[in-house]
Amino acid sequence: MSSVRVAINGFGTIGKRVARAIQAQPDMSVSGVTKTGPSHGCGLAQRLNLPLYCTSDDLEDIAAFEKGGYNVEGGLSDLLANSDIVIDCAPGKMGQSNHQKYVDAGIKHIFQGGEKHSLTGLSYTSSANHKENIDAKGTRVVSCNTTGLARTLIPLRDATGELSVECTMIRRAADPGDSRKGPINAIAPVLKVPSHHGPDLMTVAGGIGITSLAVAVPTTIMHVHSIVVELPGGHGMTTDSVLDLWAKTPRVISMSGSIDKIPSTAEVMEMARDIGRPWGDLHEIFVWTDGASLDGNTLRYFQAIHQESDVIPENVDAVRALMGMEHDWRASVEITDSSIAASLV
Amino acid sequence: MSSVRVAINGFGTIGKRVARAIQAQPDMSVSGVTKTGPSHGCGLAQRLNLPLYCTSDDLEDIAAFEKGGYNVEGGLSDLLANSDIVIDCAPGKMGQSNHQKYVDAGIKHIFQGGEKHSLTGLSYTSSANHKENIDAKGTRVVSCNTTGLARTLIPLRDATGELSVECTMIRRAADPGDSRKGPINAIAPVLKVPSHHGPDLMTVAGGIGITSLAVAVPTTIMHVHSIVVELPGGHGMTTDSVLDLWAKTPRVISMSGSIDKIPSTAEVMEMARDIGRPWGDLHEIFVWTDGASLDGNTLRYFQAIHQESDVIPENVDAVRALMGMEHDWRASVEITDSSIAASLV
Amino acid sequence: MSSVRVAINGFGTIGKRVARAIQAQPDMSVSGVTKTGPSHGCGLAQRLNLPLYCTSDDLEDIAAFEKGGYNVEGGLSDLLANSDIVIDCAPGKMGQSNHQKYVDAGIKHIFQGGEKHSLTGLSYTSSANHKENIDAKGTRVVSCNTTGLARTLIPLRDATGELSVECTMIRRAADPGDSRKGPINAIAPVLKVPSHHGPDLMTVAGGIGITSLAVAVPTTIMHVHSIVVELPGGHGMTTDSVLDLWAKTPRVISMSGSIDKIPSTAEVMEMARDIGRPWGDLHEIFVWTDGASLDGNTLRYFQAIHQESDVIPENVDAVRALMGMEHDWRASVEITDSSIAASLV
Amino acid sequence: MSSVRVAINGFGTIGKRVARAIQAQPDMSVSGVTKTGPSHGCGLAQRLNLPLYCTSDDLEDIAAFEKGGYNVEGGLSDLLANSDIVIDCAPGKMGQSNHQKYVDAGIKHIFQGGEKHSLTGLSYTSSANHKENIDAKGTRVVSCNTTGLARTLIPLRDATGELSVECTMIRRAADPGDSRKGPINAIAPVLKVPSHHGPDLMTVAGGIGITSLAVAVPTTIMHVHSIVVELPGGHGMTTDSVLDLWAKTPRVISMSGSIDKIPSTAEVMEMARDIGRPWGDLHEIFVWTDGASLDGNTLRYFQAIHQESDVIPENVDAVRALMGMEHDWRASVEITDSSIAASLV
Repeated sequence: MSSVRVAINGFGTIGKRVARAIQAQPDMSVSGVTKTGPSHGCGLAQRLNLPLYCTSDDLEDIAAFEKGGYNVEGGLSDLLANSDIVIDCAPGKMGQSNHQKYVDAGIKHIFQGGEKHSLTGLSYTSSANHKENIDAKGTRVVSCNTTGLARTLIPLRDATGELSVECTMIRRAADPGDSRKGPINAIAPVLKVPSHHGPDLMTVAGGIGITSLAVAVPTTIMHVHSIVVELPGGHGMTTDSVLDLWAKTPRVISMSGSIDKIPSTAEVMEMARDIGRPWGDLHEIFVWTDGASLDGNTLRYFQAIHQESDVIPENVDAVRALMGMEHDWRASVEITDSSIAASLV
Repeated sequence: MSSVRVAINGFGTIGKRVARAIQAQPDMSVSGVTKTGPSHGCGLAQRLNLPLYCTSDDLEDIAAFEKGGYNVEGGLSDLLANSDIVIDCAPGKMGQSNHQKYVDAGIKHIFQGGEKHSLTGLSYTSSANHKENIDAKGTRVVSCNTTGLARTLIPLRDATGELSVECTMIRRAADPGDSRKGPINAIAPVLKVPSHHGPDLMTVAGGIGITSLAVAVPTTIMHVHSIVVELPGGHGMTTDSVLDLWAKTPRVISMSGSIDKIPSTAEVMEMARDIGRPWGDLHEIFVWTDGASLDGNTLRYFQAIHQESDVIPENVDAVRALMGMEHDWRASVEITDSSIAASLV
Repeated sequence: MSSVRVAINGFGTIGKRVARAIQAQPDMSVSGVTKTGPSHGCGLAQRLNLPLYCTSDDLEDIAAFEKGGYNVEGGLSDLLANSDIVIDCAPGKMGQSNHQKYVDAGIKHIFQGGEKHSLTGLSYTSSANHKENIDAKGTRVVSCNTTGLARTLIPLRDATGELSVECTMIRRAADPGDSRKGPINAIAPVLKVPSHHGPDLMTVAGGIGITSLAVAVPTTIMHVHSIVVELPGGHGMTTDSVLDLWAKTPRVISMSGSIDKIPSTAEVMEMARDIGRPWGDLHEIFVWTDGASLDGNTLRYFQAIHQESDVIPENVDAVRALMGMEHDWRASVEITDSSIAASLV
Repeated sequence: MSSVRVAINGFGTIGKRVARAIQAQPDMSVSGVTKTGPSHGCGLAQRLNLPLYCTSDDLEDIAAFEKGGYNVEGGLSDLLANSDIVIDCAPGKMGQSNHQKYVDAGIKHIFQGGEKHSLTGLSYTSSANHKENIDAKGTRVVSCNTTGLARTLIPLRDATGELSVECTMIRRAADPGDSRKGPINAIAPVLKVPSHHGPDLMTVAGGIGITSLAVAVPTTIMHVHSIVVELPGGHGMTTDSVLDLWAKTPRVISMSGSIDKIPSTAEVMEMARDIGRPWGDLHEIFVWTDGASLDGNTLRYFQAIHQESDVIPENVDAVRALMGMEHDWRASVEITDSSIAASLV
């Protein structure tokens, strides 16, 4: 099979990571990435040998790149014309207008979780609904938080039946590279109750009734979920069998806070840096084995989410679904993850 | 009635606050406070005109105060001999040995929530079990977190019936005056699941089944609770009637995050500083009105707890219970709180 | 002498503190405070028995207060007409237009350090230039940082002669009640080199050549200054005699980090809360005795600045200067500080 | 020339980074790394194909690795016997006893900046004294802070003459993977004045008189230095020529806070993650071009130090010095840095 050409529209926190993950795959290549103008990120694109395009088709905007010292291949239309599919990694609020552009260009498209489900009417998570997305025109990879919930809850649902979930999300208030946002010394509840995070899971997975509450706290590195699950009666599980289930689940890492000396997200992120992925990313959801406890039908556990990167491999899988390249989600995940691993030093 | 003489054993974060609250009451006085040796806190005791005693009876220890430039009235035994009741505000791990001293001295005693319920076999919260504590020999005022849960859950239970509660506690990792503890940039789950915090409520209140999970976050100023309550069927409540209920509940303040511009614990604490209590304390539990939502039988809400001070007025009420001074908890709360308010400038 | 009537235009972080400090004085009273509209702060004004006025004279604006449930006495013009002097505590950028209003009303006026020296052509610090300000029409109390520098440097200059100073200011990035500003986990240099902070001292004091650099760090509670002073040759001082000098200086507190267990600004602020001033304020500049060292002609030391309150007593003294009530700065400081102390419980 | 065999004793924050940097070099290889027992880090060693040894020679200690599921090649003595030189990356306080072991084994050795200069009587910084270290028996690579000062000050000294420097170090209080240390919301001055950091530079470089003060702040990612340099009269430099000088200096990166949108260390570290080095490291010292200003003879500037990694390439160069492999420091730096760059994806 010849390589699928993937355009990446937007080259920031998510775009740059998706680009490197696509580059590592045997069955796809990056046809180009876009920036709005000459800036720091253009240098990164060049270092990674990624063809650079302008987010707009305006000739003056395009010319600005050359003046800034960067080679540019053209505008968004040029990029779309040379591509089989586009992954939209633009900042929020651009979804509606970008969607129209993709539809007009007749190109398949993948949005991120910042956009609403209604934009495409279809959402995506590898383990939840890969099949539903096969050959679709467009989809939306759900947010980092929803992806995290899917990773640990879907195998539980598959093993036991319908679940009822309450989740409190303790969210990092700003990304590591952002020095403007606070708070410095406070906890800020999200005063929309329940929050939108949990219910978003239902856009990709049935059989899980879920409600969530959220607070923002002064940290930059990971979200933590505190989760309470009601399993159906006669579930036949124990704490250990739940942990075994997750141990066999792709993109879930479980370790002990006490034995492995990982008491907080600080140590989780340090462990991730040791793995050696670009930007010190952790694509996996982290579960503390000594933070999980099944009591009767009620399972309680903590998990940590690397908000900058857990959706990255999902975007790769979504390309395979929409392009009809691989119908089995486990097979796609296996290619995606082993190719990324092989690309590391 | 002549004034009840209250000894305060330990003059740190809790002890100094309890002392000022007792000083403000018309029916009690502080017979003395203890320190282990000459230090900064002794100056505070003198400024507040609080008789100073040594935590031990050792003559050398006592003499050390004079050398440090502080007048000292004697040792703990001397203080207990001049007092009707003692409030133990010693740091953790001293409970067992201090308890024996109080029993030997034949004096009534009140411990703090750092000690276990089993130490005295009795615990105390004004709104939960004041009556049970009348004329008791000794009791334990429950922790700041348990006190916070009691304040909002007990009126709900009284209004509707048996409750089932899941709570996630987002805890400040260190007190404002403590520069040693971290984390600086992380979230640390409490890897004992469920945590001990919620169930402690059952030592003072029946009819509330509660489980809790906890994480520590990099802030010094308040705990936040994210609470999910299952009300009994036929409860007849609405979100508004729940908020009305709390508006009438002593030691609960509810305000709007959006209208009153209090989006986080930073602004809650600033509002508290405006009240003018010593140390900028907030004795009340803070509930965000726009963070509460009743959906069917499920109530979800956030509350913030000033970990340094919500138990202070409870200690005053506990004195009245153990000394048999006031049998009605609402009457005691009214005297305690209005006396503290009158003592402010 | 009859009481001088002081208007306070603006009732936020500085205004509320100045109001309480004025209320505590025997020779002045607060004629009123202003708010832009009905809000949380109006309740505080009422609790403190401070007559409330509207920042504007617009009748609709004024009427809004009544609708919000607050009694209002009128607009700014009404307040100025009933006052002998006005202290401007409005947020930044209002200086120019407010200044014109005060001039038009023919009322004496005091601005805060957020305004430029050129607005009034005169600035004020109690220990630096009280005399220069006697009977002046208007002045500006310098900023918290400049006030801090004046407190420790002016006595040094008076004792030894002309000083040359380099200062690095490690600034709290946001106030305690502000949850919007970051950074959460970063250090942000002020990329204007040198910064404006140090040289501002020269608006009130001669004989001190000073340059400063500044960084913002993720803390809310105090600024810290790292100061290097070149004393003139033949200064005759030792580290101990410098510490003695500061011990005798009003509004400077010096304590030992190791002996008094005050290793950081967290413990400094806790010590301040023990003093019992409203909002836990520390009007004094805090110097670590074990952080000062004189080596040849070079003195190095650290000091901590409570950014919310060190200028408060300076505003009181400035009233006495402009109104010609007290010509000796030390006498004014003595009245101001002892009156504030006497007002505490 | 055959490859020099480098042993790395200690495989933590510094050891793991040094190992990867050595692996990237054409003229050296890692003969082995040591751990005290089976733990997380052993897995990293295996993933990087680094022969694993036990820190001790005790047979029981060695056997513990196999029980933990890790292959181990032997004890420290075995490793030293198979190596040409050892880089000591043990935690502090081990220097004295390890030094004796290396002397006894007759092996060349390099210590880190946590040890004192007196341990080996010789210290090392590439740009300062590579020549002095040629063929030496043992040396010490200076600390991250001293290395940072050397990078920007030595070229200045070489261009102008003797320098006099005052530096305030605003230090990160804990490393990113450490959740135990605080403070959460405070600034802690280092109450040894002056601090040891600056003067340590004199162990590697003459002609620079330097004094330093230090504070710790609640951040995990970088130190910032606020530096004031007195250049000799007749220096002939301008702000621009100083910036040009640094632009040509190896291992110094200078960018604009405003134009490049790098206002704080958060954005500096994000830029570093884009470079793609393992752990997101920044080996270079970062200087803000708009934070530097030369006024007469006085130069003021800010620089940021990645405390986990700026010394890593220096260790590689130090191997070349002690082994007599390359006598010219610039040539060694060129090989080191280009080899590391080539090893990145």
